[in-house]
Amino acid sequence: MDKIKVGIVGGTGYTGVELLRLLAIHPNVALTVITSRGEAGMAVADMFPSLRGYVDLKFSDPAQIDLSICDVVFFATPNGIAMQQTRELLAKNVRVIDLAADFRIKDVATWEKWYGMTHACPELITEAVYGLPEINREQISKARLVANPGCYPTAVQLGFMPLLEAGVIDPTYLIADAKSGVSGAGRKAEVHALLAEAGDNFKAYGVAGHRHLPEISQGLAAMANKQVGLTFTPHLLPMIRGIHATLYAKLTKSVDLQKLFEERYCNEAFVDVLPKGSHPETRSVRGSNQCRIAVHQPQGGDTVVILSVIDNLVKGAAGQAVQNMNIMFGLSEGLGLNVVPLLP
Amino acid sequence: MDKIKVGIVGGTGYTGVELLRLLAIHPNVALTVITSRGEAGMAVADMFPSLRGYVDLKFSDPAQIDLSICDVVFFATPNGIAMQQTRELLAKNVRVIDLAADFRIKDVATWEKWYGMTHACPELITEAVYGLPEINREQISKARLVANPGCYPTAVQLGFMPLLEAGVIDPTYLIADAKSGVSGAGRKAEVHALLAEAGDNFKAYGVAGHRHLPEISQGLAAMANKQVGLTFTPHLLPMIRGIHATLYAKLTKSVDLQKLFEERYCNEAFVDVLPKGSHPETRSVRGSNQCRIAVHQPQGGDTVVILSVIDNLVKGAAGQAVQNMNIMFGLSEGLGLNVVPLLP
Amino acid sequence: MDKIKVGIVGGTGYTGVELLRLLAIHPNVALTVITSRGEAGMAVADMFPSLRGYVDLKFSDPAQIDLSICDVVFFATPNGIAMQQTRELLAKNVRVIDLAADFRIKDVATWEKWYGMTHACPELITEAVYGLPEINREQISKARLVANPGCYPTAVQLGFMPLLEAGVIDPTYLIADAKSGVSGAGRKAEVHALLAEAGDNFKAYGVAGHRHLPEISQGLAAMANKQVGLTFTPHLLPMIRGIHATLYAKLTKSVDLQKLFEERYCNEAFVDVLPKGSHPETRSVRGSNQCRIAVHQPQGGDTVVILSVIDNLVKGAAGQAVQNMNIMFGLSEGLGLNVVPLLP
Amino acid sequence: MDKIKVGIVGGTGYTGVELLRLLAIHPNVALTVITSRGEAGMAVADMFPSLRGYVDLKFSDPAQIDLSICDVVFFATPNGIAMQQTRELLAKNVRVIDLAADFRIKDVATWEKWYGMTHACPELITEAVYGLPEINREQISKARLVANPGCYPTAVQLGFMPLLEAGVIDPTYLIADAKSGVSGAGRKAEVHALLAEAGDNFKAYGVAGHRHLPEISQGLAAMANKQVGLTFTPHLLPMIRGIHATLYAKLTKSVDLQKLFEERYCNEAFVDVLPKGSHPETRSVRGSNQCRIAVHQPQGGDTVVILSVIDNLVKGAAGQAVQNMNIMFGLSEGLGLNVVPLLP
Repeated sequence: MDKIKVGIVGGTGYTGVELLRLLAIHPNVALTVITSRGEAGMAVADMFPSLRGYVDLKFSDPAQIDLSICDVVFFATPNGIAMQQTRELLAKNVRVIDLAADFRIKDVATWEKWYGMTHACPELITEAVYGLPEINREQISKARLVANPGCYPTAVQLGFMPLLEAGVIDPTYLIADAKSGVSGAGRKAEVHALLAEAGDNFKAYGVAGHRHLPEISQGLAAMANKQVGLTFTPHLLPMIRGIHATLYAKLTKSVDLQKLFEERYCNEAFVDVLPKGSHPETRSVRGSNQCRIAVHQPQGGDTVVILSVIDNLVKGAAGQAVQNMNIMFGLSEGLGLNVVPLLP
Repeated sequence: MDKIKVGIVGGTGYTGVELLRLLAIHPNVALTVITSRGEAGMAVADMFPSLRGYVDLKFSDPAQIDLSICDVVFFATPNGIAMQQTRELLAKNVRVIDLAADFRIKDVATWEKWYGMTHACPELITEAVYGLPEINREQISKARLVANPGCYPTAVQLGFMPLLEAGVIDPTYLIADAKSGVSGAGRKAEVHALLAEAGDNFKAYGVAGHRHLPEISQGLAAMANKQVGLTFTPHLLPMIRGIHATLYAKLTKSVDLQKLFEERYCNEAFVDVLPKGSHPETRSVRGSNQCRIAVHQPQGGDTVVILSVIDNLVKGAAGQAVQNMNIMFGLSEGLGLNVVPLLP
Repeated sequence: MDKIKVGIVGGTGYTGVELLRLLAIHPNVALTVITSRGEAGMAVADMFPSLRGYVDLKFSDPAQIDLSICDVVFFATPNGIAMQQTRELLAKNVRVIDLAADFRIKDVATWEKWYGMTHACPELITEAVYGLPEINREQISKARLVANPGCYPTAVQLGFMPLLEAGVIDPTYLIADAKSGVSGAGRKAEVHALLAEAGDNFKAYGVAGHRHLPEISQGLAAMANKQVGLTFTPHLLPMIRGIHATLYAKLTKSVDLQKLFEERYCNEAFVDVLPKGSHPETRSVRGSNQCRIAVHQPQGGDTVVILSVIDNLVKGAAGQAVQNMNIMFGLSEGLGLNVVPLLP
Repeated sequence: MDKIKVGIVGGTGYTGVELLRLLAIHPNVALTVITSRGEAGMAVADMFPSLRGYVDLKFSDPAQIDLSICDVVFFATPNGIAMQQTRELLAKNVRVIDLAADFRIKDVATWEKWYGMTHACPELITEAVYGLPEINREQISKARLVANPGCYPTAVQLGFMPLLEAGVIDPTYLIADAKSGVSGAGRKAEVHALLAEAGDNFKAYGVAGHRHLPEISQGLAAMANKQVGLTFTPHLLPMIRGIHATLYAKLTKSVDLQKLFEERYCNEAFVDVLPKGSHPETRSVRGSNQCRIAVHQPQGGDTVVILSVIDNLVKGAAGQAVQNMNIMFGLSEGLGLNVVPLLP
């Protein structure tokens, strides 16, 4: 089989360089184009010396490159870019995987409210498949356009999924206390993300409302088959990679929680249900596409506590995008994702 | 006034060295004795060079020193030590402040279950005053024996206090998602606390049950005047100092939350209610005895989210102990605690 | 005595907030003005919540404030600002302490080459006193204008000083391998200083030439009374505060190194020579104005290795500036600097 | 070809788990035995959840397992263990790669002095090949017993090698200022390696003499073909992985340094000479077997400064051991080592 010609729009952020890390050694991929408005002409490996010997490409000027030579284009761009270019790419038979939020929310008004802009191609939102393979694998396999989930939404949805699908918790009072490493904020020069600000420090942010709230609520509602009530509190961890979601819900039925989770995910290569009593660490998935989950019922009461960890740049972004690409192109789902987590 | 003669039992752990940092420049204190079984004879400043020029004492062998020369003795020891020596010290008119858990839980059976040992002087538990000045100031001022609160319990109780006292939340479903820097685990040689293990990593622990749970529940029940249902999830942060408690409860009455908190704490020098919409950072209290709190009501719903931060070694341990000493000896409550937080 | 009326120009960077931390509790200081072009009108404590309760001032617009009401003005600004305003302030009998580099280099051509601008008041360079009290105390006490030393230059000069003054090393082959926490780079939004970039990472920078090289060389030459040959290699540490300078030189005479250092600094309150065989840690001076030094002669050979640590924001910036102010105003040199280092 | 049956003695330390990370996906390796005295019977993946799905083995009791079923045994043990078992293994045609120091020093008396024990099989020291492929590839390919180099020695020797071989520096005055992440200290419960001790902190250690000094000196002397004078100063970085060696020497001949380094390493897959003016970062090799080097000649003077970075657990330990195994078994040298560094 010919290699898949891959283009990456916006290769200088963390999801971009993470795509490069994974795709550079993917056996079925030919890295074909990487664009960057600001760094056009620069060798990718000059900006990211970790890629020396793996990536020979230079950044292309997006205004001058024809992406239609690609079979698939990943958008590792800020919100609002992919929606400008997707229609044209699809028309030229180029498939699109958007790692930003442009196609994640089905309700256009909701999207426009939370993202503060007018959507450029609302007609494609319906077609777009939300790229969480554990729930949408079938549709992804036929999709031309995949909306790759956000990092928090991945960790939170995989944690609540078995419970909501089984209807054993009260969906009106869900709490997601989530903590993320700073790479989730991207490779942007901002004071609050400096080591001297975010290091040796911890805080919540966006308690009044975070853009991932409607995305998560939409997903949870689909699982529950009804509206959900969710309180979502993101926090910034003084570390680079990793998300830990601590989820709380009220049990409405007696159930073997461990069995419920194990059965739900027994065929999922990238969701690992830990033995009873476990506390997953973020480093246990560092650099890998795994989500590791443990489920607890403290003191045998009616509160269930789920602990869910992912690497925000892998299962929370670039890894899941590659997983989606593999599904879209009929490849083995784990191709190129056989990376053992880096510990310590 | 004569200086207070202070003894510290167990001066080699983090609460011990933190007591030394604060007491070394306390205007009314004469550091008189510091004991350490393992380091007897060593100059304190040889073990902790940060104290060079401030502390001239050597560690004394606890078996050879007569602590009755002190006016007050701080126990900065593991659980189970203070209860062995308190009766004798009180009999000699030496007041005692225990930074461990020996006298925190009023129900002996509960204490013995969670701490796995028989209590050595249950008769003193009734006399002991729980040293949270914001609720027990009056009794502390007359106490011979103060049980200094745990670090998590301080952050969590100060966060829930205004709501429970006012009776505006459902006390049967409280959630405390708490995160602590590693100094909370003490200065013990343990693999899980190594930089190579706990650094760049995040995890929950003790989800099935943590010793601070009964302490917090006891305190919250007193505020609510009834039993409470609490889920307490501690997590380990990849940083040294600081606790951040994120608290969730269901509002049962409509109330001006900001006003409620501001009024409750308007006379408290060490509890700082932040302006509406704030997100307190742990570093904003680094090295200081402050607790900073913000209260949120996301999307105007019926869930209240409280963010409460302290320095676990100061307001969560040594600083609060000094505050208690000041109250016990009729001094200005903030004496020796006028330390501006270290930022960045 | 009346309190000293202090103005700070540029209060939003790390040296600015560090000046505030120290001056807020300085017994002889009245914080009078703090300027910030970008944040005029904002309460200082809103930007730095760590100062809540300590600093009530708002940032003033530098264009609208008359600094001549101050007795002394600290410039915590980028290079090139102080030199624009110093002449006028001195004319109004306001003393000036510049924490930037405008007046550090005596040779104007050298300064202009390394700092890439024309000096605005070269005639004041001669008058300016280089504010390293351990060598210039007498002149500082009479100075109207003090050039506060750089952070690296402080650590390196204090380390080499006893050896060069005693003439026991070869001044033509000196090596300073220096490592700094990221706060030394200031509170500027720059990608390379992000936690996700500088965290869990280490690198040298500026090996070809760093601006502190001529400043250090000038100081060392004065001590040696001849030109010196210095290789200076700065590195960026994945932490916030602290400089560690590892210095290498060739001994030309046999000498009791420990005694040489102890005698040189026996009357210096802020230079602490550690016992023989010690390895000073940066955290042993965290938050304090101390410089701690150890001197080694590995395997009794002719190479001397000096280890010198400071907190770059205190002895390397704001603390030394306060020390200079105390000297200039005839106060006890350590006033307001009685801060025990924060450990852990 | 049959897979190589691999045994690992001491699988619970960081070099052990790193060997597992690399060997688990090595195409020609069958992980056959992993021993641990303390953890016998425990599943490896229960101790290291990062290996779930990759390693099914349990730890074996070394007293009960016959290692002669292996083709090669890696010793990831403390110093002094491998020398007890190597003779017997070699006799049974099992090849040995020791990641500890037992066979690194050719002079037995020197070894015994620095390591404080009597060598158990001095007769094998001569046979042992020092496993630095860039200098000993030929002998490694025929070796039964390889002494895998230390982490510091790898970074330092690769940095000085081109200069000493070319005879362009003064070998009597070499300085190696080296900095290591804490994983180099191993997975041992020791107070000084706690996050609360080593985090946000920096210090030198072992300035009077470190065990890697004789190992490095021996290697450098072989390159220079004469005795060398080396000052070696190790430092502890507040991070997990990575070594950065900053090397200083005096040039005795004019030479194109960039060309010298590029030519020396042009055929080496795991030594990457960066473009002129570069400053390699430790993270640029995180998780990979690369050594990246830059060479500087500040201000065109006669001091050469070399910057050399490795991941101490990969090129400084497990990765180099796998590289040696590949050479010993006639495989492609990079097999199983095709890991893109993890950045950020």
